[in-house]
Amino acid sequence: WGRAVRQLPGLPLAPCRAFSNNKIQVEMNESSGVATMKFKSPPVNSLSLDFLTEFCISLEKLENDRACRGIVITSAIPKIFSSGLDITEMCGKSTEHYTEFWRAVQEMWLRLYSSNMVTLAVINGSSPAGGCLIALSCDYRIMAENPKYTIGLNEAQLGIVAPFWFKDTFVNVVGQRVAERSLQLGSLYPAPEALKFGIVDELVPEEKLQEKAAAVMAQWLALPDHARQITKSMMRKTVLDRLVAHREEDIKNFISFVSKESIQKSLRMYMEMLKKKK
Amino acid sequence: WGRAVRQLPGLPLAPCRAFSNNKIQVEMNESSGVATMKFKSPPVNSLSLDFLTEFCISLEKLENDRACRGIVITSAIPKIFSSGLDITEMCGKSTEHYTEFWRAVQEMWLRLYSSNMVTLAVINGSSPAGGCLIALSCDYRIMAENPKYTIGLNEAQLGIVAPFWFKDTFVNVVGQRVAERSLQLGSLYPAPEALKFGIVDELVPEEKLQEKAAAVMAQWLALPDHARQITKSMMRKTVLDRLVAHREEDIKNFISFVSKESIQKSLRMYMEMLKKKK
Amino acid sequence: WGRAVRQLPGLPLAPCRAFSNNKIQVEMNESSGVATMKFKSPPVNSLSLDFLTEFCISLEKLENDRACRGIVITSAIPKIFSSGLDITEMCGKSTEHYTEFWRAVQEMWLRLYSSNMVTLAVINGSSPAGGCLIALSCDYRIMAENPKYTIGLNEAQLGIVAPFWFKDTFVNVVGQRVAERSLQLGSLYPAPEALKFGIVDELVPEEKLQEKAAAVMAQWLALPDHARQITKSMMRKTVLDRLVAHREEDIKNFISFVSKESIQKSLRMYMEMLKKKK
Repeated sequence: WGRAVRQLPGLPLAPCRAFSNNKIQVEMNESSGVATMKFKSPPVNSLSLDFLTEFCISLEKLENDRACRGIVITSAIPKIFSSGLDITEMCGKSTEHYTEFWRAVQEMWLRLYSSNMVTLAVINGSSPAGGCLIALSCDYRIMAENPKYTIGLNEAQLGIVAPFWFKDTFVNVVGQRVAERSLQLGSLYPAPEALKFGIVDELVPEEKLQEKAAAVMAQWLALPDHARQITKSMMRKTVLDRLVAHREEDIKNFISFVSKESIQKSLRMYMEMLKKKK
Repeated sequence: WGRAVRQLPGLPLAPCRAFSNNKIQVEMNESSGVATMKFKSPPVNSLSLDFLTEFCISLEKLENDRACRGIVITSAIPKIFSSGLDITEMCGKSTEHYTEFWRAVQEMWLRLYSSNMVTLAVINGSSPAGGCLIALSCDYRIMAENPKYTIGLNEAQLGIVAPFWFKDTFVNVVGQRVAERSLQLGSLYPAPEALKFGIVDELVPEEKLQEKAAAVMAQWLALPDHARQITKSMMRKTVLDRLVAHREEDIKNFISFVSKESIQKSLRMYMEMLKKKK
Repeated sequence: WGRAVRQLPGLPLAPCRAFSNNKIQVEMNESSGVATMKFKSPPVNSLSLDFLTEFCISLEKLENDRACRGIVITSAIPKIFSSGLDITEMCGKSTEHYTEFWRAVQEMWLRLYSSNMVTLAVINGSSPAGGCLIALSCDYRIMAENPKYTIGLNEAQLGIVAPFWFKDTFVNVVGQRVAERSLQLGSLYPAPEALKFGIVDELVPEEKLQEKAAAVMAQWLALPDHARQITKSMMRKTVLDRLVAHREEDIKNFISFVSKESIQKSLRMYMEMLKKKK
């Protein structure tokens, strides 16, 4: 870990440490105890196996760093927070690869959803599917006030099914009814609708995002850590325990699903479509 | 099944099949894959044993018809969607009759709530008690924008208790708090309040109901069936499983409740009151 | 029980019985079947062991009184409904004392949350922590329309954790998401925000509280008791059963928590702060 080159605007200047591998840039402000994780995996911060591995390692490092009490998760790429799971990891690969990939997706969620740190999603771009899951797993969600940015668990639109723990996380944020309708329709909500349905907590003009993030984080960090952590754990335990108890079964389900020729076909078609879009 | 005589306005003209027994008129639009079920059991579409049996058979036929992907449930009788369970089936009958009747109520709900088809309630009139349950069991609810039409699980007003699976279905739509208050008070909500509390999803002027129904159905049918069906099943499984696991117990509870002299008395009084209203 | 000296304004004049010990004044209106419990334990109606014992005894008496169908719970002390658990009961006492105290807290909640009577909280002042729990345990909550009065489960701000059944009661009222955020932040909401987040059902100008209370109570008492009671029990059973099943464990948790030197220290600091405020 070296000294940070750049400062997080809106937080006081202070000695910073940073570590950055390929896909995620982490800056740690030791004075405030807040780390900022910026996704910078062009073109769309898709959650590849490498990305997920790096994300988990970063989370673990910060979790074990006593100086770190909160993390801001945001994107370094304009207009996109994260496009979700990398479909190339799900196409034409071996069972071993699917297993490793899915375990990494689970691991990411287990770490993030159970984090002892205050986790704040600063959603400065679109955030479909797995990108939305990351946001939903944080303690608080601020989104850029831009109706062109959308967020949602849109898996059903691709003919795939959001896993039960995506669903559980979603229900814990928006309630059963909004989750049922949104998951069935694979709805992607423009920022104003995302606020209306409770998917995000606040909309902020894009240029004010970091200032707001610092203010929100300060509010959460004003609480004593220990009571807040136990409270968070109490609120999330049921849903976390469900995946822990069914983790291997969930991997088998994923493999069985992704190995179907019909699913492979629709994923290939989807990738072709994405390529043409470029 | 014969050719349909009437078309569902708002859907494209196409070869249609229809079947109609006594109480429910079903029209199937083969081009759109949408069936329309119209309740026409005067005076108030009450859910008699015959009505429920016919409803279940119709649902089963459509469920097994590969061409049918969605159903619109509505009423052919002005001002009333359905008045709910037929109280004459619960008054002065044998234990065998109560058993058969209650099993039919359960069967109707189990089929409707777990349907693989897109189910859309077009509530063009009042919809108390069991009528409300039918609406709540669909995927989406459109109600006529008429404050004279009311909807709700008003069982408590009659001195009876909504069964646990009515309650579970209600909680899944409006959440625990609104359900707790509404069930205790036996609230019947005029359409605008029903929208406010989330009991229905949209209000539409009565003359635009079918046009809107076609648009909503088209939106839901734009999704691939398979992923949508698995998602729906995932969302509703817990609640469905609960009745399946306690079905005989639930029948016994109903019989024990309905056999009480105090309950028989209040049901008789209620029926007298209804007769005088006519 | 003697004749009541004062009448509850807004309810018809009628023979009344009253009983009052030290901390809670109870008036029973036999004509309406409504009892009014007024907390009058200066300075802030804190829930001491004595207060809780008296509360439980009063609840039991009224529960067993066939003439009593509903209770209004309010405060006789200006600006405060109840300040919550009495911290002096949790500071520097013996394990036996902590056990007895915590069992009384549990007992109060078990009786109130499962009461067969209609329970109406008339929140005419601030209501943090345990005070908020009392309000949340009622069937309906009216709060004075005064932004200076706040309500919420703010335990986390004191470095302590709201027990799981406080949390369950809260989730049943406001849903998982609002509860998760509010409990982590230990949020105290001014009355208008409390309404917005669903913590209370209505705001009423302070001088109209009793009139409104009488109207709300009349609405609830218009329902037949038996069906309403079974419905209430059905809605609350899961959450009640959870504490009943884990009651001893919950006591042990409380003792282990409160016995920690760090917790004792922060409670002492908090008490010092309160003393200085005076």
